[in-house]
Amino acid sequence: MADSIVASLSSLSISSASTISHAAPTAEASWASQLPKGVLATKTLLFKPKTAKSAAVKPVLVVALDSTDVGSSGVLAKEIGIKEMRAAGDDVWQEWFGAAKETASPLSLSSKSAPEGSHPVTLVLDSAIPKLPSDAKLAFHAPGSQTESITIPASDFSKFIESHKIETQPVDFVELKTKTPAAATKPAAGAAPAKSAAAASGSKASAKIEDAELIGITVRKGGDFPEWYQQVLRKGDMLDYYDVSGCYILKPWSYSVWEAITKFFDSEIKKLGVQNCYFPMFVSSDVLEREKDHIEGFAPEVAWVTRAGKSELERPVAIRPTSETVMYPYYAKWIQSHRDLPLKLNQWNSVVRWEFKHPQPFLRTREFLWQEGHTAHISLAEADKEVRQILDLYRRVYEDLLAVPVVPGVKSEKEKFAGGYYTTTVEGFVPTTGRGIQGGTSHCLGQNFSKMFNISVEDPAAAEGKRGTAEGRLFVWQNSWGLSTRTIGVMVMVHGDDKGLVMPPRVSQIQLVVVPCGITARTTQEERTKIEDACADAEKELLAAGVRAKADLRESYSPGYKFNDWEMRGVPIRMEIGPKDLQNKSRMLVRRDDGTKTSQPAEGIAQHVLQLLDTIHHDMFKRADDEYRSHRKVVTQWSDFTTELNKKNHVVIPWCEVEACEDAIKDRSARVAEQGAEQEAADERAPSMGAKSLCIPFDQDQFGDVKGKKCPQCGVDAKRWTMFGRSY
Amino acid sequence: MADSIVASLSSLSISSASTISHAAPTAEASWASQLPKGVLATKTLLFKPKTAKSAAVKPVLVVALDSTDVGSSGVLAKEIGIKEMRAAGDDVWQEWFGAAKETASPLSLSSKSAPEGSHPVTLVLDSAIPKLPSDAKLAFHAPGSQTESITIPASDFSKFIESHKIETQPVDFVELKTKTPAAATKPAAGAAPAKSAAAASGSKASAKIEDAELIGITVRKGGDFPEWYQQVLRKGDMLDYYDVSGCYILKPWSYSVWEAITKFFDSEIKKLGVQNCYFPMFVSSDVLEREKDHIEGFAPEVAWVTRAGKSELERPVAIRPTSETVMYPYYAKWIQSHRDLPLKLNQWNSVVRWEFKHPQPFLRTREFLWQEGHTAHISLAEADKEVRQILDLYRRVYEDLLAVPVVPGVKSEKEKFAGGYYTTTVEGFVPTTGRGIQGGTSHCLGQNFSKMFNISVEDPAAAEGKRGTAEGRLFVWQNSWGLSTRTIGVMVMVHGDDKGLVMPPRVSQIQLVVVPCGITARTTQEERTKIEDACADAEKELLAAGVRAKADLRESYSPGYKFNDWEMRGVPIRMEIGPKDLQNKSRMLVRRDDGTKTSQPAEGIAQHVLQLLDTIHHDMFKRADDEYRSHRKVVTQWSDFTTELNKKNHVVIPWCEVEACEDAIKDRSARVAEQGAEQEAADERAPSMGAKSLCIPFDQDQFGDVKGKKCPQCGVDAKRWTMFGRSY
Repeated sequence: MADSIVASLSSLSISSASTISHAAPTAEASWASQLPKGVLATKTLLFKPKTAKSAAVKPVLVVALDSTDVGSSGVLAKEIGIKEMRAAGDDVWQEWFGAAKETASPLSLSSKSAPEGSHPVTLVLDSAIPKLPSDAKLAFHAPGSQTESITIPASDFSKFIESHKIETQPVDFVELKTKTPAAATKPAAGAAPAKSAAAASGSKASAKIEDAELIGITVRKGGDFPEWYQQVLRKGDMLDYYDVSGCYILKPWSYSVWEAITKFFDSEIKKLGVQNCYFPMFVSSDVLEREKDHIEGFAPEVAWVTRAGKSELERPVAIRPTSETVMYPYYAKWIQSHRDLPLKLNQWNSVVRWEFKHPQPFLRTREFLWQEGHTAHISLAEADKEVRQILDLYRRVYEDLLAVPVVPGVKSEKEKFAGGYYTTTVEGFVPTTGRGIQGGTSHCLGQNFSKMFNISVEDPAAAEGKRGTAEGRLFVWQNSWGLSTRTIGVMVMVHGDDKGLVMPPRVSQIQLVVVPCGITARTTQEERTKIEDACADAEKELLAAGVRAKADLRESYSPGYKFNDWEMRGVPIRMEIGPKDLQNKSRMLVRRDDGTKTSQPAEGIAQHVLQLLDTIHHDMFKRADDEYRSHRKVVTQWSDFTTELNKKNHVVIPWCEVEACEDAIKDRSARVAEQGAEQEAADERAPSMGAKSLCIPFDQDQFGDVKGKKCPQCGVDAKRWTMFGRSY
Repeated sequence: MADSIVASLSSLSISSASTISHAAPTAEASWASQLPKGVLATKTLLFKPKTAKSAAVKPVLVVALDSTDVGSSGVLAKEIGIKEMRAAGDDVWQEWFGAAKETASPLSLSSKSAPEGSHPVTLVLDSAIPKLPSDAKLAFHAPGSQTESITIPASDFSKFIESHKIETQPVDFVELKTKTPAAATKPAAGAAPAKSAAAASGSKASAKIEDAELIGITVRKGGDFPEWYQQVLRKGDMLDYYDVSGCYILKPWSYSVWEAITKFFDSEIKKLGVQNCYFPMFVSSDVLEREKDHIEGFAPEVAWVTRAGKSELERPVAIRPTSETVMYPYYAKWIQSHRDLPLKLNQWNSVVRWEFKHPQPFLRTREFLWQEGHTAHISLAEADKEVRQILDLYRRVYEDLLAVPVVPGVKSEKEKFAGGYYTTTVEGFVPTTGRGIQGGTSHCLGQNFSKMFNISVEDPAAAEGKRGTAEGRLFVWQNSWGLSTRTIGVMVMVHGDDKGLVMPPRVSQIQLVVVPCGITARTTQEERTKIEDACADAEKELLAAGVRAKADLRESYSPGYKFNDWEMRGVPIRMEIGPKDLQNKSRMLVRRDDGTKTSQPAEGIAQHVLQLLDTIHHDMFKRADDEYRSHRKVVTQWSDFTTELNKKNHVVIPWCEVEACEDAIKDRSARVAEQGAEQEAADERAPSMGAKSLCIPFDQDQFGDVKGKKCPQCGVDAKRWTMFGRSY
């Protein structure tokens, strides 16, 4: 069937059509996601206008980009001057397309083309399609097939329409959406970044966003946040979906962020005397289950290897979900004397937690990359000190590399690591949803594990008579600490905007892209070469100065296409070089984070760029920090607690630190949320979640004196200011 | 029982005895290996002298370090003046020790101690025991237990003997061994490194080795090579055994070598435009099995996850054995246009091959760390070029970092990567066994995989009319290349000596250790502080100059103990600082690789050390290279082939390159080897292995003109010089 269509198109001198095969769409990976880069999925809708019985029925065929939100049929009907219409039934689809609606395509219409006069359907064409770049390809379903599609260049689709003499009415659905009553009642969320508000006001800026939506991100961050997140990651080239559920491919654009984090963190922990090692990924069930309390939390998520080749293993082995029980039997063996302390090991590896909850790229995946540090110390004081040193490195990863503000603090008893002594954390914040996110944790395990695994040394402080006795033994003090690729997800959620990713300069694989501009049909070859050479030279000069620069000299892509492409990937600075810039010996620099555009002398540009990258980092951090701070509300009355929570804030209260009170806070805030559930539509996946304690911030002074204050939930004397919120 | 022994020892004022628990010994991990560092396993043997029936039988009890080879009872009997004796039966063990011989210990003898007169056993004491450093501890079995041992300081063991009035005869088993007839008939293997020959001649040098054997490596490299390898890795702190068979723990001392390799290789491939990424470790069975030929080789070794928590997975997932089939479906999706080429991705990860063959640390393990590069190119020429660029980086890893010579070349058709077009390799050589080892491979996959996975682009060279047609499609040319932690095993096997590891300076985590010397009981505190300060200052100065230096200021260890310790770990340079050095403003430098000792002015020592490290690297490489070359024999007659092979050589022949001939060579060389099997005792695990082709070296000229030569096996015209040998 697909072949016959290609053949018939060929007869219309559309020779560029071809059939491609791909995986069948799944619940997680849509048809669109199965298509190659540069090939855009379409959708085909069919409506029957409600007419008087006697009148001839001219069905309305809608062809739009799959990513376009076509809104309600009522609004569309009004737009195209039809009083009322409704979706066509299966019989109509079969009649006109010979296929069920899921796999029908307008290309099948060829068999229905009228030899003379106009075609018996009206075509409503998504106005985004004619605006596509000339090398964009459209994909249509091969009739009846889930795994084959027909692709043709967008420009050839109009050829197809013309040759079939189909009456066509273009509709700008983006504009149409602003006309819908729903749009008026759904304002941008209060928490939306300032820049999208700005974008909505300036008409030029808002047009730009519409342009971007053609091949770019099709939903607003403040609108459908989960969809936005997925689009930004995929279109920003961070990852690809994978055919094992809950696993994702980290493409170079995201992996390079992880490399920047590892490089920084690894060199810092080595300064602290930490050494890297590698323990096997497999754990025997004996060892895994040795510490019952600890493993209880992990057991339901442990993946088991039971077979090798065709042999059933006599004893299945687990894949590590974390390495405490993997490593500590060896610590017991290696640590024999106080001279073997401190023992500070770290490994960079992946761990597997086969969660059955909804997976979320970077935030909740079945395999993830991380580092896990495991150290043993002679005293609690020494362990304490390291816990904080590591936590501060985590803070620096977020703040100094990713430009993401975090609040360092200690977890409540309820939220600490199972089996540990206490847990410190850096807590992040996603303004769009108002939810907190645990950024990284540094645990003091106390002596719990050392007693379990018998990791002990002769106490150098013990009296001579006690040496060599059980009494003279000292169980070591242990820490464990981990930071994962979740960092990348937080970075994306905090900084990304309606155009896509916004990369913090210090971790962006490319910090500046050079795009040749102003080349038109009238440009001479000599002028063209001059511009392109200037771009290549700029790249060279910047690379030499330590700027990760790239000249985008791809042919057959317009500057506009390139702008979009790099904006989606979030490259911090775009440098434009055109004839005027050459003439003026200047370079145009455009910041991704705030869109500002300045012309700079070409002379000394590298130094200027280095400074600008630093400025961008600080501005990005400041914006995110201001926003986080504005969403951190100090509350002393219970009545204000849920009100502020429902405004997507974190709430800081003078808290009693009683576990039962924490449970009560969660229950009461969840119940209130349910009543106001419709206000929560922005993030469907956290509709009525209760608040939990996120951390007890180390910086208590900023909130004033807690003495004499009562816990707003239970009225008991407050101990410390504690930050509560909904969270990931 | 263990407790009562400890109590009875305590009554002898041996309060330092204690009971320790550990894992039960297994086939792979001996009792000794389960003990903590610094605790030495012992062995207890019991013999009954053959006497006249009427005479009282005084049994002979032998107590030796577990690592000591006590040789035959005949030689021992002669040494202690007994005509004949034989191993005691179970009944005698039970009578004297109340335990079976496997878990008996001399400490149980206390219950048998005679109140007056001498003890009714004769004790033969391994003379290594009294020579142990004062803080060394001996471990004895807790009677009847596999998982408990009693430890006492070596010095307290003599206290125990004295208090029981046991007649003791010390025996130096190392010396005794040289008296055995077997020693005379088993000369050091011809392939043993020059330095061990030197050690055997000079008496001072040979004494040193005996000292080292007390706590060090107890077998000679040229003697029991497999045992030597395991001891060197464990005692040199490279790895520890793990309770999942075939998996090993990479300790910082070996992992840091891998870090040095990754740092070099990663920065080099980035210069070639390769980007890092991360694909999930899990593969669905569909994808894994898509390429039947390729997977056939891996299928028997694939580990399958079938269960998560308590849920059986609906569809089991495999753990990647390599990532061709994991990655290439996505290459098909990502590569749409020739502008997407070349695509050059690499990942640093671990892969799992659940081999059932005998595991060998670093060389054959079930999980191993590696990098795998996967690239796609527009043309064969471009792919060819990259294959060789990567292979040259592999050569540089071996030669420039590890000081290990390799021969770069191409694999025969029989030995190439399954499903590939051709395979290039760097081949290493282990002189002690005469076996070759594949060091790293860079494959050109041709278009085989691209056709299988439909990775194609529109051929930019196709005529306009063919564009968009199947005819106008070009399947990409692919490469894949990998280098693993096997590198570390090869490095150890090539450079290690009878004292332990010899680390190549460029990858050694510590390049120079500073040891304070000449501190005696008469040294004043002031002098002592001066020496130690000088050591700390030297460390600081060297670190500042970029030398990875460490001052070993551990108290309560003698310089001799420290020398041994760092020699076992193979630290390239030892700097000794004693009172004389301070006086002379000089520093004593001792090279690990050749033992030379020179005094150098303290002034400008860092520059000297940097040069010396370089010299050591080059000397180590030259020695290994000379040795490899001397074992590479050009042969043109079949009769010489097996002769040279059995002399632990690689054999280079003018070869026909016919696959059947390669099979014949393997068969015929294996058969001959069987006949001469007793000559092969040095490496029990490769007794009668046939030779296979290792590579066709790129440098053909060194062997002369191949034209007109005939293949010595089959007489057919030779094509190229080809290197054959036994291999790992």
